[in-house]
Amino acid sequence: MFKAMAMKVEKVSELTTNRLSLYLRCLEGLAEAGRLTISSDDLAREFHFNSAQIRKDLAYFGEFGVRGKGYEVETLRDNLRSILGLDKCHKVALIGAGNLGSALVDYYGFHQRNFHITAVFDSDPDKIGQRVKNIEISDMKNFSSVAKRDNIEVAVIAVPGTAAQSVLEIVSAAGIKAVMNFAPVPLKVSSDVKLNTVDLTTSLESLSYFLAQPPRTNGSETLLKSARAQGFTAVKNKR
Amino acid sequence: MFKAMAMKVEKVSELTTNRLSLYLRCLEGLAEAGRLTISSDDLAREFHFNSAQIRKDLAYFGEFGVRGKGYEVETLRDNLRSILGLDKCHKVALIGAGNLGSALVDYYGFHQRNFHITAVFDSDPDKIGQRVKNIEISDMKNFSSVAKRDNIEVAVIAVPGTAAQSVLEIVSAAGIKAVMNFAPVPLKVSSDVKLNTVDLTTSLESLSYFLAQPPRTNGSETLLKSARAQGFTAVKNKR
Repeated sequence: MFKAMAMKVEKVSELTTNRLSLYLRCLEGLAEAGRLTISSDDLAREFHFNSAQIRKDLAYFGEFGVRGKGYEVETLRDNLRSILGLDKCHKVALIGAGNLGSALVDYYGFHQRNFHITAVFDSDPDKIGQRVKNIEISDMKNFSSVAKRDNIEVAVIAVPGTAAQSVLEIVSAAGIKAVMNFAPVPLKVSSDVKLNTVDLTTSLESLSYFLAQPPRTNGSETLLKSARAQGFTAVKNKR
Repeated sequence: MFKAMAMKVEKVSELTTNRLSLYLRCLEGLAEAGRLTISSDDLAREFHFNSAQIRKDLAYFGEFGVRGKGYEVETLRDNLRSILGLDKCHKVALIGAGNLGSALVDYYGFHQRNFHITAVFDSDPDKIGQRVKNIEISDMKNFSSVAKRDNIEVAVIAVPGTAAQSVLEIVSAAGIKAVMNFAPVPLKVSSDVKLNTVDLTTSLESLSYFLAQPPRTNGSETLLKSARAQGFTAVKNKR
């Protein structure tokens, strides 16, 4: 029963692109270290992937490797960046100027991946007009007009759980198609919007549950190795 | 092929506890709103779950419902908190006092779930001895002794990807069994340590990939609804 559920939930393209992300990160490290070429076997061994999986994933997007020589590190890196759309700049609106939201404005990972937070919104009158870093906090009421004016493509939701669904609806109505949500609640979204939820609370609770159990040595090791070999990734993605 | 992989990767207990987390969050909201009882059907309808799944998940942990009346909201909430181990306080060490790490020290979700960051570590001599909020930054070299002295149970890794594996090894060697990792790289961990990775970069890249594709109307809607109905969660958990 649970197996069938996992099958229904996981989507093919998401698994593949998540692995491409991980390959990219490894190739960036290799390029920085001056490595010129790498075979799929070495890539698999050095970063705990499955080499057949690497060849299959990359073959899906074209012929990147050279027989007997492997992949050219910089060429493959650049191709993966382009496949993942990272060569284009995306303007991002942050909604919720609390602790977590303010931290995200500064988060290096956004800049590194060509995501630029250019607008911040809140509904708290005490916050509207203040600044987070250099960005003035706008009234959430004006989301649609500001998003259109600034060509916002991505929304990051960092509001309390109780407000998240209504914020998502405002964001969708404004035509935003890509949303990253940090509110730890299930959200309803129309099928043309891609919603990625990063649920820190659920992750904490699963650690807590683990710590509450007596230590056990069960049969999960095979599962673990399989997960690790796939470089399976961290965030639940819905489209 | 992909389906088989998803099956191998997902683990039964993780899926269940992740759903318990979501039920708990909904029940907390209901209790705050003064609701006394709720049936599994109403819980499913109001929060986009599957009612048969709710009954099955809860039955696994005992008999909580009253026939014809449903669940008592506060009782079920308290039982779920206890099942998830949230009635116990966990001391947490943060490793990496950069932007993200410093934000996490303040993150309300930790306190709310009884996770208390009581120690912060870094290896940068300029940072050691400084303070993040009220916590002095310790030298990572002293991790083991400080962790033992302070009864640390959980480690949060917020270091660059290149340092994450070696940090994880230090943490494991010090006897820490529960780790939350924000470094976006695949990590190797022994099977008695529970490692949850929160990979913001991969999530960003999947949004970027989505935005790079032409709009499509494909058959993913059924999958989407299924995922939503399960309240499937956000973080990849390994044990």
